[in-house]
Amino acid sequence: MTEYAVVGRRLPKLDAVAKTTGETVYLGDMKLPGMLHGKVLRSPLPHARIARLDTAAAARLPGVRAVITAADTPRVKFSFVEALADKYLLCTDRVRFIGDEVAAVAAIDEATALQALDLIEVEYDELPCVFDPEAAMQPEAARLHNGASNVAWEVHQEFGDLERGFAEADEVFEDRYETSRVCHCCLETQAVIAQAHQGGRLEVWAATQAPHTLKHELDRLLQLPPGSVRVHYPPIGGSFGNRLVADMKAPIAAILSRQTGKPVKIVNSRTEEFETARTRYPYLVTMKTGVRRDGRIVARAARVICDNGAYNDKGPSTVASAGVTFAAFYNVPNVRYDGYIVYTNKQPGTGFRGFGNPQVTFAGESQLDMIAERLGLDPLELRLRNANRAGEAAASGARPGTCPMAECLRQAAAKIGWQRRRELPPNRGLGLAAMLHTGAGARMYGYNSASAGLTVDEEGKVTLVSSVTDVGQGAQTVMAQIAAEVLGIGLDEVRVIGNDTDLTAYDLGAWGSRTTWVNGQAAREAALRARERLAQSVAAWLEAAPEDLEFQGGKIFVRGAPDRGLDFAQAARLTYTKRGEPISETGRFVDELGPTMKGWGDVYPTFSTACQAVEVEVDPETGAVRVLQAVAVHDIGQAINPMAAEGQVEGALAQGIGYALMEELLLDGGRAVNPTFADYKIPTFIDVPDPQVVLYSDPDPTGPFGAKGIGEPGLVPTAPAIANAIYHATGARLRSLPITSERLFTAMREQPAAPGPRRAAETPEPPGGASPDQRADGSGPDKLQR
Amino acid sequence: MTEYAVVGRRLPKLDAVAKTTGETVYLGDMKLPGMLHGKVLRSPLPHARIARLDTAAAARLPGVRAVITAADTPRVKFSFVEALADKYLLCTDRVRFIGDEVAAVAAIDEATALQALDLIEVEYDELPCVFDPEAAMQPEAARLHNGASNVAWEVHQEFGDLERGFAEADEVFEDRYETSRVCHCCLETQAVIAQAHQGGRLEVWAATQAPHTLKHELDRLLQLPPGSVRVHYPPIGGSFGNRLVADMKAPIAAILSRQTGKPVKIVNSRTEEFETARTRYPYLVTMKTGVRRDGRIVARAARVICDNGAYNDKGPSTVASAGVTFAAFYNVPNVRYDGYIVYTNKQPGTGFRGFGNPQVTFAGESQLDMIAERLGLDPLELRLRNANRAGEAAASGARPGTCPMAECLRQAAAKIGWQRRRELPPNRGLGLAAMLHTGAGARMYGYNSASAGLTVDEEGKVTLVSSVTDVGQGAQTVMAQIAAEVLGIGLDEVRVIGNDTDLTAYDLGAWGSRTTWVNGQAAREAALRARERLAQSVAAWLEAAPEDLEFQGGKIFVRGAPDRGLDFAQAARLTYTKRGEPISETGRFVDELGPTMKGWGDVYPTFSTACQAVEVEVDPETGAVRVLQAVAVHDIGQAINPMAAEGQVEGALAQGIGYALMEELLLDGGRAVNPTFADYKIPTFIDVPDPQVVLYSDPDPTGPFGAKGIGEPGLVPTAPAIANAIYHATGARLRSLPITSERLFTAMREQPAAPGPRRAAETPEPPGGASPDQRADGSGPDKLQR
Repeated sequence: MTEYAVVGRRLPKLDAVAKTTGETVYLGDMKLPGMLHGKVLRSPLPHARIARLDTAAAARLPGVRAVITAADTPRVKFSFVEALADKYLLCTDRVRFIGDEVAAVAAIDEATALQALDLIEVEYDELPCVFDPEAAMQPEAARLHNGASNVAWEVHQEFGDLERGFAEADEVFEDRYETSRVCHCCLETQAVIAQAHQGGRLEVWAATQAPHTLKHELDRLLQLPPGSVRVHYPPIGGSFGNRLVADMKAPIAAILSRQTGKPVKIVNSRTEEFETARTRYPYLVTMKTGVRRDGRIVARAARVICDNGAYNDKGPSTVASAGVTFAAFYNVPNVRYDGYIVYTNKQPGTGFRGFGNPQVTFAGESQLDMIAERLGLDPLELRLRNANRAGEAAASGARPGTCPMAECLRQAAAKIGWQRRRELPPNRGLGLAAMLHTGAGARMYGYNSASAGLTVDEEGKVTLVSSVTDVGQGAQTVMAQIAAEVLGIGLDEVRVIGNDTDLTAYDLGAWGSRTTWVNGQAAREAALRARERLAQSVAAWLEAAPEDLEFQGGKIFVRGAPDRGLDFAQAARLTYTKRGEPISETGRFVDELGPTMKGWGDVYPTFSTACQAVEVEVDPETGAVRVLQAVAVHDIGQAINPMAAEGQVEGALAQGIGYALMEELLLDGGRAVNPTFADYKIPTFIDVPDPQVVLYSDPDPTGPFGAKGIGEPGLVPTAPAIANAIYHATGARLRSLPITSERLFTAMREQPAAPGPRRAAETPEPPGGASPDQRADGSGPDKLQR
Repeated sequence: MTEYAVVGRRLPKLDAVAKTTGETVYLGDMKLPGMLHGKVLRSPLPHARIARLDTAAAARLPGVRAVITAADTPRVKFSFVEALADKYLLCTDRVRFIGDEVAAVAAIDEATALQALDLIEVEYDELPCVFDPEAAMQPEAARLHNGASNVAWEVHQEFGDLERGFAEADEVFEDRYETSRVCHCCLETQAVIAQAHQGGRLEVWAATQAPHTLKHELDRLLQLPPGSVRVHYPPIGGSFGNRLVADMKAPIAAILSRQTGKPVKIVNSRTEEFETARTRYPYLVTMKTGVRRDGRIVARAARVICDNGAYNDKGPSTVASAGVTFAAFYNVPNVRYDGYIVYTNKQPGTGFRGFGNPQVTFAGESQLDMIAERLGLDPLELRLRNANRAGEAAASGARPGTCPMAECLRQAAAKIGWQRRRELPPNRGLGLAAMLHTGAGARMYGYNSASAGLTVDEEGKVTLVSSVTDVGQGAQTVMAQIAAEVLGIGLDEVRVIGNDTDLTAYDLGAWGSRTTWVNGQAAREAALRARERLAQSVAAWLEAAPEDLEFQGGKIFVRGAPDRGLDFAQAARLTYTKRGEPISETGRFVDELGPTMKGWGDVYPTFSTACQAVEVEVDPETGAVRVLQAVAVHDIGQAINPMAAEGQVEGALAQGIGYALMEELLLDGGRAVNPTFADYKIPTFIDVPDPQVVLYSDPDPTGPFGAKGIGEPGLVPTAPAIANAIYHATGARLRSLPITSERLFTAMREQPAAPGPRRAAETPEPPGGASPDQRADGSGPDKLQR
């Protein structure tokens, strides 16, 4: 492995001090001169016509500066994907979920704004509702929108020959899985400040993961000329996909600002945050897998029904993304993916760490354990036989350049003590799950490039202007490490700025684990150019060739002669003062396939893989699950900052434990019934073991210093690994998330006493025989023999 | 003349709407979360020892968060020029002028801070004072500092052979002139916000003309490691040189912030602004000129005594700068310049539009008229005979590349109706004065380069990141016009950002009329590179050679075939979306002589010239002067924005009228006696005629599109032109500024009735004869015949 000085080192993030001392200014703390406070009136009903809407009393309230309704907004529908636009900024004549935006006010303070909301009079005529996505797909179901059905979008892809694949299988298994509605639970609630300027421009401060996307979305939402919007993106207190699509508060604040001539701020209360949350999409996944007796998967089909909620957001994108990964995961020659996004009278979902992949991986990796048991194979062995390998193309054409999946599986098994499976005390279980995910964003939006600016100042301090969105993952620190490595200086010498769409070149944002791979290459290129510039001046003084110079340890010297050199800072100063030369350069990374991507095989530039293994203990009296140990072996190419990368995995794993065991936003007639942290439980330190995170190093030639992304993978395999371990401990196979103690307790009580699953795993039943799965939650696998 | 599409057009400034609607946020309006308010306790005495200083009572006042004295500050002296450091941040044991900083407080609001100041107990032991700079130079004078004398700095330069020059002269004239102490009178008073961060960095918001300089000054003042300071520079409400050197409020706010952990803001009240104003340096100039009978100047010497006030600021620099220009102005083979900067117990001066040049030009151009009269030459003719010409080196080696001085003189004379000199009604007079000034900054600080970043975004909008300091002169607009011209698009398509020393590369700041010439070239280069990038992609689509493409009118097309092309915005969009290429580039301008400048001949890269002519009417009953007409013909190379350039000249000319006729900060025992706009008069619209500004176009090959700077010249010749016109009208030659009605009335009363100056000018007296000058204000010229 190459030895680096800054890259690969466990360094504190650049913003660590400011964040830990509370000095960081989040949007909620920001005040602009003359700023007003806005609040949104939301529908209290899941489906209704607006019969009457009267804002007169609200407008008369002293301190109120503006009250707006749909009449004040452009007559244009919106969605993240323009072709799927379905939502007005404010509801015109109909509300479709509890929380749908009906009107908004701006007032001199928040209390007045809230008082004004109470004075807005609305009369509704209720309409029939649909809450279940499968029921919503029926022709007779009440319709939410004008389309032919409640299916908002669908996708169908087949690679290889599915039918022949199943025909060639020795066994075919079909099972149905269900995932839950979970909230991102960012500690910073959503907020926005908008200021409509006299000259026509709209300036917006938003905690967003995709500021350039937000810019365009606001152009569309407000029907502004291109280039009208400038987005500032201050530090962000958590995002996880929750800040990818424009929240309506942004255009609402903009219109309120335009009407009042003042900046307008809107901040969610915690309750609003829950009640109006865009959640992770619940998926119904029917997974059908054909295998040979030796465990080789020969055909695989997934049918996904995604509960879209009332409007499109990232639904189509997540369903498609999950399909792209599904089609590449494991070396399967014949693959089919069918996805449906279905409207229901519920709050819309959005992207959430993994972008559909955790849902489908929960199904696939749960089923693999079930198949292994039926085939009498060790679940680890079954996975190893089907593992993706570097350079081997999947049926879809996707070809991971690096892919140490087998190594991750083996290391995870070794670390958790997989050989202990047969020796565990009662109520303990081991489980593992693998995953494949993009390590480099996606090309599905037609552009996957980046640029960065780098200035070495007259004191040798380096400023990198990067369009990365640092959502707490340490993106700015990682960019700084890359620049520092190239320039042979310490991390302290580098600052990163950006956070302004006027300043940074177009960028897709922080999602899809793309930042390190995409923006890192631009940062590296910018640093290389600055290095070249410095080499030229230093070479002139040292009477050496520029290419013979080393940049190392804060010095620039002739290779092999460390005494013949200058301090980096000195070299910078002299370049300015003795040559009159500023050192300011731009670096670009061009992903040429971005715009020309042809099919699912090209969507992800490169892949990350991982295996997580857990040991659980189940309380037989209560069904409560404790995760005793968690091992996460993640392929990251080359970690730029192992501490930050591990932090990503640790945080995601904790979120995965919540996803597996406790989190769920419960809706009753479309209304959230647990919209507080008292009732919506997220894991605390008690619930999360100190995880063993292993960053498997296998430098990817396409990434900067071999790096790939790590933002999402840590959550993707956690839930199925836990579900598999619970099955191992209890013989109860739960195919619905979350596996709450109540659900597990019920499932355990319903299962017959014998044969225990552990023994079942040891002495497999003959294929076609009864499976413990049938006892788990009542819906046994539909086993199709051909 | 080349035809440009955007360059050379009268376009409103980019910030015009925001400024006229009041939307612009100045520092005074800014609030940071948790911000405290600071106030400074200043010395009430011009010279004293601090016998006792007790802050305990102030510190106990509720709402006070910090009280600091010298004990809280680094033990280091400061001055703009490091080698001349003479001022502690807060006075240690001695105060040297009324207003000297003694202590400071930070409190929750301004009222509490002011109350706390009253509670600080200080006992002073008074010391002897010096107020007159000539007296201060005497060996027996009370000393302000530890040096051998009160002469803080001196400069002596001779080019050619002065003695031989005077020996060759037919006539030698020596006269003494005196200029006044005037305030910048920025409508925005000085303000600063400082925030000392936990991580060690210091963030400062300051209305400064030289943000990068301020950064280094704060490093020095606070003894911080290099690179600690980040300066943000918001829009500025007037500067004129007043914001070039660190005001002590900035480091004081920084220390208060460090002590309190909160951002601290300090804003001058208008009275503080006057009482503590750094003013224009008053000069005593003794001008000695040797001429041939035909008017050719063969030798010239200036002896300048600059009233420094109590501490060095820009004094040495302005005295040196004025010398550099003096040595180049007019084609004089033998030149000598002697400058002395002398401490007095008064508030220090600083740079002010023209940087010493207005003071020396007042002397020189007043004297030229006196000489013309004595030689029987028309003042215009005398100047024409000595005018600098392009390519002709001055004795100092300075060689203006372009220099239409004669043309400016002739046009100004023509416009004002110079031929009317003999026909004017009584009490009316015509006068003119020429000037030479840098048109491109100065190399005296060792670096005169710049860089700029330019991004063409995915919608074809252009962002230019420039380090220019837009002090209202329109620097950002001018940069945008340059970029727009290169890219063939409209000004509306370009935005300029910067205003942050972390973001912008090192830059000397907005002074010396340098911005357009220096930064304009970097902006042009950045735009050229972006154009190249765009040309490559467009060429590929059009199947043309990149070099055959024209960028014009928002389109990119094959030369000669406007139909074979794309819209600029379309080309940008396609470059991003079809090639995956961001368009982001850096441009540099390297003034190689910056660091290697050898002598006075190299200080200014190029020169601007001008002639202003005025017509005045003097009320014989009161001495009140009305400027009836003002013509300003200014060589600007190529105006990038004629409206902005004219605005610079108009504003400067108005300031020049104030300088000539009314403005003076009057000190009594070192105390300002007229520190309000009620008592300190600046010209209003009534006092300023609608000036005829002519921008003489003579593109300078060194400038961007031929442009040179125009920030300062408009003020330089105004006062002598008015003094000359007053003499023409009245026969009273006033050699002290300002020429108030009282002074003029007195001078007019003291002068004998005949021969009137107008006749004198027509029928010159024989050389050596009595001159009306002798009658002007009592101190006739010492005429030395050799």
